[in-house]
Amino acid sequence: LSITAAHAQAKPEDVIKYRQGAYKVMGWNMGPMAGMVKGEIPYNKEAFARHAEIVAFVGKLTLEGFTPGTDKGDTRVKPEAFAKMDDFKSKMTKMNEETAKLAALAKTGSFDDIKKQFGATGGTCKACHDDYKSK
Amino acid sequence: LSITAAHAQAKPEDVIKYRQGAYKVMGWNMGPMAGMVKGEIPYNKEAFARHAEIVAFVGKLTLEGFTPGTDKGDTRVKPEAFAKMDDFKSKMTKMNEETAKLAALAKTGSFDDIKKQFGATGGTCKACHDDYKSK
Repeated sequence: LSITAAHAQAKPEDVIKYRQGAYKVMGWNMGPMAGMVKGEIPYNKEAFARHAEIVAFVGKLTLEGFTPGTDKGDTRVKPEAFAKMDDFKSKMTKMNEETAKLAALAKTGSFDDIKKQFGATGGTCKACHDDYKSK
Repeated sequence: LSITAAHAQAKPEDVIKYRQGAYKVMGWNMGPMAGMVKGEIPYNKEAFARHAEIVAFVGKLTLEGFTPGTDKGDTRVKPEAFAKMDDFKSKMTKMNEETAKLAALAKTGSFDDIKKQFGATGGTCKACHDDYKSK
């Protein structure tokens, strides 16, 4: 789905706040899963599955926050993300695929398999952050 | 679902940023629906339904961001929200109910009915903002 007319007219700073909000929600839900995978907090299948579902859902909402003109401002995105938008989108798609796999596996899979898929998912986050997010 | 151990240990400022992020995603998706309802942008059934689904989904994620100790800081929440948590939760539940209705109706209903339900939904947002959010 393309962005609507309302979003096309959004101020760059509001678009940036939107996408940062979406990532914040993702991070909030990645945290407990990471804690369970690392053994820092007890594994709770229901909670893990819920966090995975949220990350998969919200992970599909971030791309629309990278509209033209939002490469500058209060943002840690590198200009390369916009210059190499095809690669950026490809990495985003990969993340969407792996988070969807994680969400499905989290409901039915063994914790060992879930841990592996969490690693694969985190790898797709990192791939994009390494290239397109400033430290 | 109760919050996990990881979230129980979260710093208040991170909890506040989380909930603000969730509301930001909701607002981003309320905007185009409001624009369509007001006739400022063309009604697009598919887009409206998608925005409604997102608002319904993310609207269920905000309450966990109001943990004890997050009543102060860089936040516009009023202390009353924590002092009257039962009423706050009740208003949040009402919002969840109306956004769920909107999401369902947006897929199959007439635009007239959708507009009415959007008004009802917005009313549940406003009810909470009036009582518990600073200007």
